[in-house]
Amino acid sequence: MEQSLKHTLHEQAYQWVLEAGQLIKEKMDTPLEVMTKSSPKDLVTEMDKAVESFFLEKIRKNHPSHKVLGEEGVGEAVHETTGTVWIIDPIDGTMNFVHQKTNFAVSIGIIHEGKAEIGLIYNVMEDTIYHAKRGEGAYKNDKQLPKLPEKTLDQCLIELNHFWLCPNRRVNEEKLQQLVYKAIGTRAYGSAALELAFLAEGITDAYLTFSLQPWDYAGGYVLLEEVGAKLTDAAGQPVDFLSRTTVVAANTSIHQEIINDYIELK
Amino acid sequence: MEQSLKHTLHEQAYQWVLEAGQLIKEKMDTPLEVMTKSSPKDLVTEMDKAVESFFLEKIRKNHPSHKVLGEEGVGEAVHETTGTVWIIDPIDGTMNFVHQKTNFAVSIGIIHEGKAEIGLIYNVMEDTIYHAKRGEGAYKNDKQLPKLPEKTLDQCLIELNHFWLCPNRRVNEEKLQQLVYKAIGTRAYGSAALELAFLAEGITDAYLTFSLQPWDYAGGYVLLEEVGAKLTDAAGQPVDFLSRTTVVAANTSIHQEIINDYIELK
Repeated sequence: MEQSLKHTLHEQAYQWVLEAGQLIKEKMDTPLEVMTKSSPKDLVTEMDKAVESFFLEKIRKNHPSHKVLGEEGVGEAVHETTGTVWIIDPIDGTMNFVHQKTNFAVSIGIIHEGKAEIGLIYNVMEDTIYHAKRGEGAYKNDKQLPKLPEKTLDQCLIELNHFWLCPNRRVNEEKLQQLVYKAIGTRAYGSAALELAFLAEGITDAYLTFSLQPWDYAGGYVLLEEVGAKLTDAAGQPVDFLSRTTVVAANTSIHQEIINDYIELK
Repeated sequence: MEQSLKHTLHEQAYQWVLEAGQLIKEKMDTPLEVMTKSSPKDLVTEMDKAVESFFLEKIRKNHPSHKVLGEEGVGEAVHETTGTVWIIDPIDGTMNFVHQKTNFAVSIGIIHEGKAEIGLIYNVMEDTIYHAKRGEGAYKNDKQLPKLPEKTLDQCLIELNHFWLCPNRRVNEEKLQQLVYKAIGTRAYGSAALELAFLAEGITDAYLTFSLQPWDYAGGYVLLEEVGAKLTDAAGQPVDFLSRTTVVAANTSIHQEIINDYIELK
């Protein structure tokens, strides 16, 4: 992607993400229409839709040739990552949003010809924005995030949904239980986007999940690359930004070890 | 405890907790001498000791007859809860403190003739103080926390260390795995004191652990009582504020159900 276009898109996305956060904060105390999608655990609110529509309108007006892939599907279907694709999670951590009214994020990734170029994750209630352009470093607000230090697994904090330690149909829970014993500790914050941002910040050292949609990780992708971390599927292969996938995001010094020794997909 | 004494102690504790937080923030960027106590996961820093000594000095000077029970044991040994006992965790969430430089708390509980009268939990980096006096409500900064609403377990977020879902010597992990399936979600933040504060705030609905020291829960105890939540051991019996215990802290509407249906101690 051309430098000047990358800068323009980053600036616009940054501005719109802040505006979306403002929109969310203003509407937060009005009663939410909480509906269920596929299961009662998969909440969707009017707010998610409103925020996604806000982005869609901005993008269509300013960049009519760009595609938009969003959690709520208010845009068109996207089947390939040619051209420029905005991947949007209007409210990542919807459960936290509904239940806690905090610990949720707006997440945007911009992919150009299949390559992640820009990423933003806005922790709305903390008013903290994580953002990165490929090759230009990752930032938390206006402070550059340092490259992650080398670590051994027994020094690492792992982010993991508790569910994967229970019998499930995607991954061998017993091997993951071994990882819990091995690591120095485990955390679960309930928002994939924030979990990736915390990893980029060095607050934690790995984030593992066995079912994630592109909008959950697209905003974090470039952030992680820029601090020297790695995000792949659970087989160590690149993610495609189009389909549901397993995700192992980690400090590069432990990424392969986690995949080799602790993950056995079913 | 006499009203006026309770008010004085609350005011003093509040002030000292803020001062302790200031002390921690000032020293945070000097290199820590991290030592290990019983295991590499059980970190203790010079800072913990310095903060506990700060409290000990204040209490000895102002209330020479009061006893002090602290995580670092800089005070005398305490074998009974007669009289007035200050129970102090200078830095709860030491792992977060060392690893994340955030998500840790200063926690103080004041027990009088065996009964918890005052509790304070200071989320240092967020600059948020949770505090309560028995019978006078619980507060987050100067905002009173409402009584917790009635809920069913399938609407609840449970705080739980991942470790308890793995084979361990204290509790049947398979029954806890059933709780993970039943609840709407699970979280793990890595600081018992903050986890109790979040529960009092309604951010989550239960916190379970199977090995906790008095200084980990003493600060949260009155907070929880004041919002109508319950903290007992895993058999539903009162905790004694003196010894290591199991803890089930929860919204009252789900407390007994968790104990009956999901906890089987070994």
